Amino acid sequence: MTTAPAPLSGVVPPLLTPLTAEGELDLPSLERLVAHLLDGGVDGIFALGSSGEVAFWDDARREAVLEAVTGIVAGQVPVIAGVIDMQTDRVLQHVRAAERFDLAGYVATAPFYAITGPEEIDAHFRAIAAATDRPLWAYDLPVCVHTKLSAAQLLRLGSDGVIAGVKDSSGDDVGFRRLAAGNRAAGSPLTLLTGHEVVVDGAYLAGADGSVPGLGNVDPAGYARMHRAAQAGDWEQVRTEQDRLAALFEIVFQPTGKVGPAAGVGAFKTALRELGVVSTNTMATPMSPIEGEAVQRIRGILQSTGLLESARA
Amino acid sequence: MTTAPAPLSGVVPPLLTPLTAEGELDLPSLERLVAHLLDGGVDGIFALGSSGEVAFWDDARREAVLEAVTGIVAGQVPVIAGVIDMQTDRVLQHVRAAERFDLAGYVATAPFYAITGPEEIDAHFRAIAAATDRPLWAYDLPVCVHTKLSAAQLLRLGSDGVIAGVKDSSGDDVGFRRLAAGNRAAGSPLTLLTGHEVVVDGAYLAGADGSVPGLGNVDPAGYARMHRAAQAGDWEQVRTEQDRLAALFEIVFQPTGKVGPAAGVGAFKTALRELGVVSTNTMATPMSPIEGEAVQRIRGILQSTGLLESARA
Amino acid sequence: MTTAPAPLSGVVPPLLTPLTAEGELDLPSLERLVAHLLDGGVDGIFALGSSGEVAFWDDARREAVLEAVTGIVAGQVPVIAGVIDMQTDRVLQHVRAAERFDLAGYVATAPFYAITGPEEIDAHFRAIAAATDRPLWAYDLPVCVHTKLSAAQLLRLGSDGVIAGVKDSSGDDVGFRRLAAGNRAAGSPLTLLTGHEVVVDGAYLAGADGSVPGLGNVDPAGYARMHRAAQAGDWEQVRTEQDRLAALFEIVFQPTGKVGPAAGVGAFKTALRELGVVSTNTMATPMSPIEGEAVQRIRGILQSTGLLESARA
Amino acid sequence: MTTAPAPLSGVVPPLLTPLTAEGELDLPSLERLVAHLLDGGVDGIFALGSSGEVAFWDDARREAVLEAVTGIVAGQVPVIAGVIDMQTDRVLQHVRAAERFDLAGYVATAPFYAITGPEEIDAHFRAIAAATDRPLWAYDLPVCVHTKLSAAQLLRLGSDGVIAGVKDSSGDDVGFRRLAAGNRAAGSPLTLLTGHEVVVDGAYLAGADGSVPGLGNVDPAGYARMHRAAQAGDWEQVRTEQDRLAALFEIVFQPTGKVGPAAGVGAFKTALRELGVVSTNTMATPMSPIEGEAVQRIRGILQSTGLLESARA
Repeated sequence: MTTAPAPLSGVVPPLLTPLTAEGELDLPSLERLVAHLLDGGVDGIFALGSSGEVAFWDDARREAVLEAVTGIVAGQVPVIAGVIDMQTDRVLQHVRAAERFDLAGYVATAPFYAITGPEEIDAHFRAIAAATDRPLWAYDLPVCVHTKLSAAQLLRLGSDGVIAGVKDSSGDDVGFRRLAAGNRAAGSPLTLLTGHEVVVDGAYLAGADGSVPGLGNVDPAGYARMHRAAQAGDWEQVRTEQDRLAALFEIVFQPTGKVGPAAGVGAFKTALRELGVVSTNTMATPMSPIEGEAVQRIRGILQSTGLLESARA
Repeated sequence: MTTAPAPLSGVVPPLLTPLTAEGELDLPSLERLVAHLLDGGVDGIFALGSSGEVAFWDDARREAVLEAVTGIVAGQVPVIAGVIDMQTDRVLQHVRAAERFDLAGYVATAPFYAITGPEEIDAHFRAIAAATDRPLWAYDLPVCVHTKLSAAQLLRLGSDGVIAGVKDSSGDDVGFRRLAAGNRAAGSPLTLLTGHEVVVDGAYLAGADGSVPGLGNVDPAGYARMHRAAQAGDWEQVRTEQDRLAALFEIVFQPTGKVGPAAGVGAFKTALRELGVVSTNTMATPMSPIEGEAVQRIRGILQSTGLLESARA
Repeated sequence: MTTAPAPLSGVVPPLLTPLTAEGELDLPSLERLVAHLLDGGVDGIFALGSSGEVAFWDDARREAVLEAVTGIVAGQVPVIAGVIDMQTDRVLQHVRAAERFDLAGYVATAPFYAITGPEEIDAHFRAIAAATDRPLWAYDLPVCVHTKLSAAQLLRLGSDGVIAGVKDSSGDDVGFRRLAAGNRAAGSPLTLLTGHEVVVDGAYLAGADGSVPGLGNVDPAGYARMHRAAQAGDWEQVRTEQDRLAALFEIVFQPTGKVGPAAGVGAFKTALRELGVVSTNTMATPMSPIEGEAVQRIRGILQSTGLLESARA
Repeated sequence: MTTAPAPLSGVVPPLLTPLTAEGELDLPSLERLVAHLLDGGVDGIFALGSSGEVAFWDDARREAVLEAVTGIVAGQVPVIAGVIDMQTDRVLQHVRAAERFDLAGYVATAPFYAITGPEEIDAHFRAIAAATDRPLWAYDLPVCVHTKLSAAQLLRLGSDGVIAGVKDSSGDDVGFRRLAAGNRAAGSPLTLLTGHEVVVDGAYLAGADGSVPGLGNVDPAGYARMHRAAQAGDWEQVRTEQDRLAALFEIVFQPTGKVGPAAGVGAFKTALRELGVVSTNTMATPMSPIEGEAVQRIRGILQSTGLLESARA
């Protein structure tokens, strides 16, 4: 148990889970990756998110990740943890398993696989919140969950104290604007973080309090600089950083014949291996790592965006 | 471990999971439900499918269901078990936990939540098959999994001996016809069961070997009569049974404000409670049971389709 | 103006529109194609449907097609005409332009492009019906229209005398079963035709009155035999014909790099050219015709399904 | 014929089409609406777009709109015209009918209704461009067209001189960022306008050259101020204007039971009637106008965003 932390905002990358070539948790790489993020100036770390390949882990692996991450971070920044699963009871199991770690909150999606409606989604979030004193974040990720959380439902859950914030990866910038406006009108019960790493600048204008950028594993310092510029109202600097980060994001389009995390998380892992941060670009079963010419194209993008020289200088 | 059973065909209802009012597994109701199915003449039972609310159970509940069902069935008909989870490693855990039970095979979907492509889906099914000597069934359920398994991929997995059959709940009758034709051309490596309870007659014409009808929990005898009529080539009888069963299926459209299993499985449970087979229509958290006028409308349909009189006579 | 004809049922192929190499209407080919259909024993002809490439024609071409088709058919079987356009006013223009031809009815979709809801769809069909004494058919084609017509709305329009029938190309066999059951319960105000040429057998069992098979351009005699077998209750014969026609339908999957009518209608035109019925496989702008190895594969399927020998014997 | 105009950028509202209560073109209202836009400082006018209800008009109405609009505007700002139709030949007809008017370009979508692929879409835009000397804009509107134009295809068409710009209403802000970056890398062959009126600020940061805001009919001055602020790099002012316009946009969510243009365009027309700019809020057949309490809610939003007082002061 921990005292309820202050609301988390700023740059909170969804931490990758480095693996050895045999698919085991690679603790030395994880230490280097966390150091890379902390050196970059991130405001928090989100463990066991989609970018952390949470969907692929069994319970033991999830627990091992949380143990390692909280141990390495050691309170330097807040750590929040995904408790992603199909339906309420399994999510509650993940919460119970995580309560012994030093965590600043949990991140849960709406139920998935079995179809549910607003009534069940509401009951789902309320059941999770009732099981812990820690803040709960709603994760809006229709590309995986296949349900779009409505602004009205999120604002009601926020006003009722059920959720403390939203990680928006909905791809619906119009909806995000309406959520941000509704949140302000309601006295800002919710902290709003965007998960779309190439349009964080527009999200800041719309009212985002920060970002959860998968690409922030690769270039945490870039996202931190963009956040500070946004805080300072230096929008030309915000845009300059965002444009460079958008150019860097092209790494995820280099693999051919891959979709989903095999392409996106795979590109992040490959980039971090080329940068010397992690040891392999091994992915969770049943995904295979990126190989061949795509690796060279990723290196080229790292160089053209100024990351590889600085790492190898 | 069990010796590899003969291919399963005919009527294989996806067994509901009866609950007490407190949400616990209701063993007496389960015994009555299994007896209801066996009395109806089903050819097998599919435990831990979508209709069994598998998505809502933790591992202990899954194991308890398998222990109870295999104990009650006691070899009278084959039992196959769903090993449904997000990704490969968790599915393998479910397989390992189930190996001690008397099961005639496993049923797995493609990976879900995290997006995967054909390469990962192929590796997924091959990894599961490699972990057991029992037959593996592919469950094609895009409404939950959000991936449609292609006929080409299924036929290749069948010809390679990876999967023994397909439970098709894709809603794509054109695709099912192509799958059935391709299967015949390949020497019928696959047993094909349809999950769409109101068009089983057309599926038989197309080449289905049987059905996995959720509604078969309510009226197993109807599906068994339809199957025998199809085997005998008595298509007028097939159609007559199917039309009556389609009229019975209207129970799932009676709840208002409910979607997914809260409506469909909820209607099946409500009907079985009205028929005296199970004790409650309690659903898994976070779903609420069907109440009010919808229950009366469901009773009306049970009466108009001839089920309620026979039960209460 | 014509007196209201008897309801149309049976086999009503959506007539292709043969073109010269220059893209002009090819009247000699059209005459041969109509003769091919009449010789095959069709019960009616549907001109200006999707298979007739109606979406690609300007008003003059539409009128030329109707003039030619009604002239060639000359009352031997009923001809119905598609009046497909984005919204009501343009559909009404197509109706007015068609009133001078000998037509047994019109076929209209819900509005498309601009999004409309049930209220507008209802007003749309009522406005069309009010503009003509001829029967109106609702064309349920979500793959093009992106709206699924609900069974409840279709039955209400039928009971109100607004529409005389439905051409169902929705791909929703469960929904079609419910529509057929509802139609019988309402006294059969609607004639129901299926547009899915590879599962017509199942549609007959569900309650279809006939079919609108694009593939019926290629093998009208096969669909006519299947219809007569269904009428006679000879379901083994129904299935045998359907299986052969499903094997023939594989021609639409032979083109590579083509989608939509460029693949499907293109394959029908290519097959008919190889059968000597039409002179070219030219498609409407901006589509290119099927060429190369796909033509050889289509020929192979025509031979394996017994069509090419009989044509060239 | 006109000489090729300079590229159009800035605020280019998609002009509504005011109707009389009988559904006829309301010329006095159109004159007042155009004056409202010009007084507001717009940089151009887009006639016959989705907000202009183009999908509902027959050819005569389309021509009447262009005649009226170009006559009223009389060269004060450039006018571009939608040539929206299902497939190439009809689009070419619309181009030919429009050539006699003083227009600065045409706006076309990809083909719709009949499914087409990249090959046909490419041929479609090239055929339109070949038919006129005026600039051609690609209109990316998947919610109506059901095809997303890829950045790669748009950039190739731009580099080849086929299209001069893109009106992006795709709702894909990540894709828009990639398009903008690719455009800069290619030497900016394309002018990029966003159609999403509540996130124009983010689009400016991403690289938009302007906007095509339907809401700009209601508050053209607000969009003009935002554009000037963006040009000046005054991002706080940009955000302030955008937040107020986003609050105003809530008018489109006030109607109950309406979808698509019946809600959105209907709300714009209702607001303009309340502001005294147009005489009715009549919609094209088969849509009904907004009535009842929704009108009062729209008035309330006009007041809270400062528009109604200024109009009635």
